[in-house]
Amino acid sequence: MTDSHRLTEEVRRANERFYRAFESLDIEKMAQVWVQDDTAHVIHPGWTAKYGWEEVRDSWVAIFDNTRYMEFDVTDVHILVVGDLARVTCVENLRSVVGDEQNTGQVQATNLYVQRGEQWLMVHHHGSPIFTS
Amino acid sequence: MTDSHRLTEEVRRANERFYRAFESLDIEKMAQVWVQDDTAHVIHPGWTAKYGWEEVRDSWVAIFDNTRYMEFDVTDVHILVVGDLARVTCVENLRSVVGDEQNTGQVQATNLYVQRGEQWLMVHHHGSPIFTS
Repeated sequence: MTDSHRLTEEVRRANERFYRAFESLDIEKMAQVWVQDDTAHVIHPGWTAKYGWEEVRDSWVAIFDNTRYMEFDVTDVHILVVGDLARVTCVENLRSVVGDEQNTGQVQATNLYVQRGEQWLMVHHHGSPIFTS
Repeated sequence: MTDSHRLTEEVRRANERFYRAFESLDIEKMAQVWVQDDTAHVIHPGWTAKYGWEEVRDSWVAIFDNTRYMEFDVTDVHILVVGDLARVTCVENLRSVVGDEQNTGQVQATNLYVQRGEQWLMVHHHGSPIFTS
């Protein structure tokens, strides 16, 4: 395996860990995949950006509190690694239960991961609604 | 000026160049600020991602063909530089004329720039509609 291939696979696994943490609806699991400092940003579909780990964490808590079930099939995964920062562009095909409502939908995501020691930690998640192909 | 401050200012200028190119509605000016290879991705508000310079370019041509006027006031600019890749999170406060319709609105953006020699070139633009603060 080339170095570039190895790094791409590491980032692919980090991206899978993020979606498994999202499905867990458990803030402690979500916290483990994030950089926990001022550089953490999140943009949920239709929201303005939340800046810094404290705001990012609060946003996940709010989402998890309102969600009873979440399942992702992640497709169209494109990975670019530039030094210690990696970009993942992907489509989230999701099924969720919020309150008593079952939802299915698609979200277009940009995920960024920064290498910290042996780990790739999420530093940015931007999800946006898809209205058209 | 520290090295870190200098790099941040370089990326800030690259981000300003992108919005001036967008306002110009001129595909040649837009082309100058982009990486023109497979790594270029763009996600316009409500769209799925376009992958590679050819698709990215076509998307701008389609937008420019339908837009008579575009003006941005860019706020909430946060810049992170990690080696040769930089992230900008910002809000686009825009006024546009599409067909005979005047629009004002806000778009939440994630912009990524990669350093190529003396230049920071856009490799990723993700804009999403804002429904709530």
